[in-house]
Amino acid sequence: MLAADSALIHAPHHDGSGLYVRGPGTPRVGNELRVRLRVPAVPGCAARVWLRSLRDGEPHIEPAVRSGDEGAFAWFEAPLAMVNPVQRYRWYLAYTDEAGRTEYRWFNATGLHRRDVPDANDFRIHSGRGTPDWVKESIMYQVFPDRFANSGAEKPAAAWMVACDWDTPVEGSSENTSRQFYGGDLPGIEARLGHLAELGATVLYLTPIFPAESNHRYDASSFDTVDPLLGGDAAFISLVSAAHGLGLRVVGDLTTNHTGAGHEWFLGSHQNPGAPEGEYYYFNEDHSEYESWLGVPSLPKLNWNSDALRSRFILDDDSVAVRWLQEPYNLDGWRIDVGNMTGRLGADDLNHEVARMLRARLEEVKPGAMLLAESTSDAAPDVPGDGWQGAVSYTNFTRPLWQFLAKEPDPEAIGWFFGLPQDGPARIDAADFIATHREFSAGYSWEVRLANANALDTHDTARAASHMIEGGQLIAACAQFSFPGIPLVFAGDEFGLEGFSGEDSRTPMPWDAPEKWGADLRGLYADLAALRTEHRALVDGSLRFIHAAGDLLVYVREHARGSVLCVISRGPVPETPLGTGIRLERDLAEPLMQVGMAPQLSVNAAGELLVGARGAGAVFHLAPTPGPWS
Amino acid sequence: MLAADSALIHAPHHDGSGLYVRGPGTPRVGNELRVRLRVPAVPGCAARVWLRSLRDGEPHIEPAVRSGDEGAFAWFEAPLAMVNPVQRYRWYLAYTDEAGRTEYRWFNATGLHRRDVPDANDFRIHSGRGTPDWVKESIMYQVFPDRFANSGAEKPAAAWMVACDWDTPVEGSSENTSRQFYGGDLPGIEARLGHLAELGATVLYLTPIFPAESNHRYDASSFDTVDPLLGGDAAFISLVSAAHGLGLRVVGDLTTNHTGAGHEWFLGSHQNPGAPEGEYYYFNEDHSEYESWLGVPSLPKLNWNSDALRSRFILDDDSVAVRWLQEPYNLDGWRIDVGNMTGRLGADDLNHEVARMLRARLEEVKPGAMLLAESTSDAAPDVPGDGWQGAVSYTNFTRPLWQFLAKEPDPEAIGWFFGLPQDGPARIDAADFIATHREFSAGYSWEVRLANANALDTHDTARAASHMIEGGQLIAACAQFSFPGIPLVFAGDEFGLEGFSGEDSRTPMPWDAPEKWGADLRGLYADLAALRTEHRALVDGSLRFIHAAGDLLVYVREHARGSVLCVISRGPVPETPLGTGIRLERDLAEPLMQVGMAPQLSVNAAGELLVGARGAGAVFHLAPTPGPWS
Repeated sequence: MLAADSALIHAPHHDGSGLYVRGPGTPRVGNELRVRLRVPAVPGCAARVWLRSLRDGEPHIEPAVRSGDEGAFAWFEAPLAMVNPVQRYRWYLAYTDEAGRTEYRWFNATGLHRRDVPDANDFRIHSGRGTPDWVKESIMYQVFPDRFANSGAEKPAAAWMVACDWDTPVEGSSENTSRQFYGGDLPGIEARLGHLAELGATVLYLTPIFPAESNHRYDASSFDTVDPLLGGDAAFISLVSAAHGLGLRVVGDLTTNHTGAGHEWFLGSHQNPGAPEGEYYYFNEDHSEYESWLGVPSLPKLNWNSDALRSRFILDDDSVAVRWLQEPYNLDGWRIDVGNMTGRLGADDLNHEVARMLRARLEEVKPGAMLLAESTSDAAPDVPGDGWQGAVSYTNFTRPLWQFLAKEPDPEAIGWFFGLPQDGPARIDAADFIATHREFSAGYSWEVRLANANALDTHDTARAASHMIEGGQLIAACAQFSFPGIPLVFAGDEFGLEGFSGEDSRTPMPWDAPEKWGADLRGLYADLAALRTEHRALVDGSLRFIHAAGDLLVYVREHARGSVLCVISRGPVPETPLGTGIRLERDLAEPLMQVGMAPQLSVNAAGELLVGARGAGAVFHLAPTPGPWS
Repeated sequence: MLAADSALIHAPHHDGSGLYVRGPGTPRVGNELRVRLRVPAVPGCAARVWLRSLRDGEPHIEPAVRSGDEGAFAWFEAPLAMVNPVQRYRWYLAYTDEAGRTEYRWFNATGLHRRDVPDANDFRIHSGRGTPDWVKESIMYQVFPDRFANSGAEKPAAAWMVACDWDTPVEGSSENTSRQFYGGDLPGIEARLGHLAELGATVLYLTPIFPAESNHRYDASSFDTVDPLLGGDAAFISLVSAAHGLGLRVVGDLTTNHTGAGHEWFLGSHQNPGAPEGEYYYFNEDHSEYESWLGVPSLPKLNWNSDALRSRFILDDDSVAVRWLQEPYNLDGWRIDVGNMTGRLGADDLNHEVARMLRARLEEVKPGAMLLAESTSDAAPDVPGDGWQGAVSYTNFTRPLWQFLAKEPDPEAIGWFFGLPQDGPARIDAADFIATHREFSAGYSWEVRLANANALDTHDTARAASHMIEGGQLIAACAQFSFPGIPLVFAGDEFGLEGFSGEDSRTPMPWDAPEKWGADLRGLYADLAALRTEHRALVDGSLRFIHAAGDLLVYVREHARGSVLCVISRGPVPETPLGTGIRLERDLAEPLMQVGMAPQLSVNAAGELLVGARGAGAVFHLAPTPGPWS
């Protein structure tokens, strides 16, 4: 057992950030990059290091050179050739233990390993397509239009609707769930844009705005117009324009997996088997049956084998994906619904092909557009970097964070927790939180990780506040704004709203009913947004774990322009020494920000940093930045 | 902590074998299978179990039903729909601990997990293409023709050769390495077929037999004829015919990644840029340079973008891949060289396309042909079941087995151990051996696992005997014949030959020089082959681990037609209780087979099976078979 095996602070570190990878921002096949590994100079320090890369499927190993020493650690550096579009690599280290014996370790994206590891968790750098800076810098705010704000404009009734007042309770699980109509609209959102700006949001993400026969509008009946119930095209043009005027970008929500059964394409093709739109869907031989999303007949599944669909949806000059990004609409990008199922049915798997086609088309018509895709499962294999820029998923951040901060399951809970048959998240400790995060993040290039959305909750999940310990949401928000990826705040999080399922969480915003607020967290979110905006390290700085055990989590985001140490406790933590390998930049009395029962830091006579906490809280401090590249 | 977390015998079990999966032998998309999980009835037994599958990219979870109890364990069963060509699934379990609390666990192909796990290690079943029974039942014997047996026939000298006598030392690392010519030939092999039959081999695997300019012949100069130095086409026809007469099949070695620079295709195209073969390779603009295997100019890389190459190599009636399987040659299949690099270069990745094309073509022209591919890395992602039937690789079996049985590195070792900069395998214990094996096997369907070759060594590696502890090769052979996959014996293993690298291991067979034998293991291999042939469980029985810690490894291969318990010790093991969850079928005094200092089994008053060992050894016992499907 080496020191590096048992303590994160003694383990080597590498990730895809600028401190560790040097080369073109968007590398191409044939480029040569430089990569380096940070190796703490503890007893048992690695004496020799090699870089192992895969080249055309074949392992290639070469020595890394000790390129610098910074007291507490040494740098080992090696060239990395971009041989393939997604270049994979990991490190091999020879340690000399205290008895003088040599021990070997692999270091890959899940950590240090004393036995052989598969290539799946290699570090990876993708080539060819980079993500726009503004996307990585985003702080997204999600609005579910029917529930955000009602301008009071008159709305005609429709057969599918169950009209509700703004304070009618949401029926989270009934036949009315998707029919309860609260009448939130685009002018209502426009009138509240100041709220988003005050929170520090930079992107407004709207769930669907096309006409439909439900309050969620994922069952579009047309992609050609904005739902008149929301105010129609004019209100949309006005909203986007006003948002842009405030420096906010606006992103829409597109269903590439399905349309509504009421969609003009589907109606035409279902009733008329000879219609050109017939091939857009999967019909059976006699056209009587069709494939649909999870067998729900109101959501017929799109068939991406159809060249005509590809043109109409993506490739034409006025395709669905293109036209809303152009004048006069000027949307800034898309969040793709059901990204994980798009193009997949039985033996068909056109998922990556559709993603690549869409990405390439957006780069032609609107370079710099955002393109994220929803995934309800392990998304990494579907985001190699050439299609979706990032994933809106739950596996690598949201779920393990819920589990770390889970309270005891509520006896009144519904017995089904986000896809699993249990009353609430299974509780894990800080070590397992980090292990889960690393394992689910390993399959992403760094560039993709920075474009993954980190939500505490969405319109498809329970609310964090309903499942987390007292004060848990505050700590969770601190993690959300300090982990790599885009913080995605679901409207209502800033009021600490509760909800035991996705539908149950779609409560109308209680603007004028503070008694319905779980907590007023507007200041917290604004402070976190300001912190992230001020400290570039929180956007694309390296993520290095210092300590993760029990109730205590310590990590540092390191960046050439300044680093930030993040300390999170989910409960009381006895004073814990972190060793001498981590220092602070400023006096301990001056944290950048403190939340809840913020952990207390001190330094003992031996120069070791100590952390203790009286309860759940978080604190941010400035930290020194490792040396520059030679 | 549950009992199931810490002891393999208390953990649930599932794999792709017939005891756990029921349905068509070769399922198709749309089929419904039944799968079941074995859950030990220990304190903290799982009370509820669910099956989670991926359907078109979306997780789907449904309850499993407790379908039977067999005293020490319970069965949980669920239907599994084959929604996609490779159907993935894993299990979710709710345990009730002794304090009455519920704890949740995932169970996937790497074991039991207390936190979320990515989909990568899900169990998987592939559809559409099954592997012939004879392939799974194979016991392969690898012959490197130049070094196996010389019939004494006259051979003309060639410029590249350094003629050697049969007892000239092999130069493992010199300019002569690939030029030392010992003159082994096909008539020599034919005369020794009785040796293969006596060892119990069922398949003769020949490394290349096409004309070339090296002793290894991986640099083919033609695919149209058998090297005259080996005896030419007539000798080949005679050898295959004689082998078939003895019930032995014969498999060839094909380089789909490259040819020799002396190949007639390459010579024509290199000298004549307009030649039709020009597109078979990767030339630069002015035809002066070309891509080659790892930059070795004598091995120009084939370009699978070329339709003409695809026809000539695979699709034509007399293509390279087809003609040698037909009359009058009648080869029974191919081992593909450099399978992991085939079709891969820079931005090109045609690897799976080539594999699928080749598999489909062989099924047309010779249903039941063997098609395995070499891989020097983690092969699982390249063998989803529709291309190569299995991998000839090292990661999931050979390497961790070397590491488990490694001796202290030899001070005279060459400082470079099979691709890594170290003097010998890094030593791991039984727990890490199994963990490595499981992690590298998880990505294969069961059908593919049964067709993966398990070698102790090959012509590309050091010899097991050179790196293993005293008696280690004997134990290793026991594992080789009792793990899922095809035992692949490299000629010379049966004489315990040594070698510190691949080239160094290609020593001429010392038929008449017993003083050169490390050990006479012919009886051992024959006994193991007989054991595997007699006990179907060793071919396709479930692989369930009972105990893996320190120096002791216990597992059972379970099958409806009888089960075999395998116990391996790599050193002295104090008497260790295995619990009451495992029984033997026959009296303890009657093992099926014992090797080395065979571990001793006993039963104590509580009915617990105990295992102890005085040193390195292995023992096989009959074990009871779990109950049949209801």
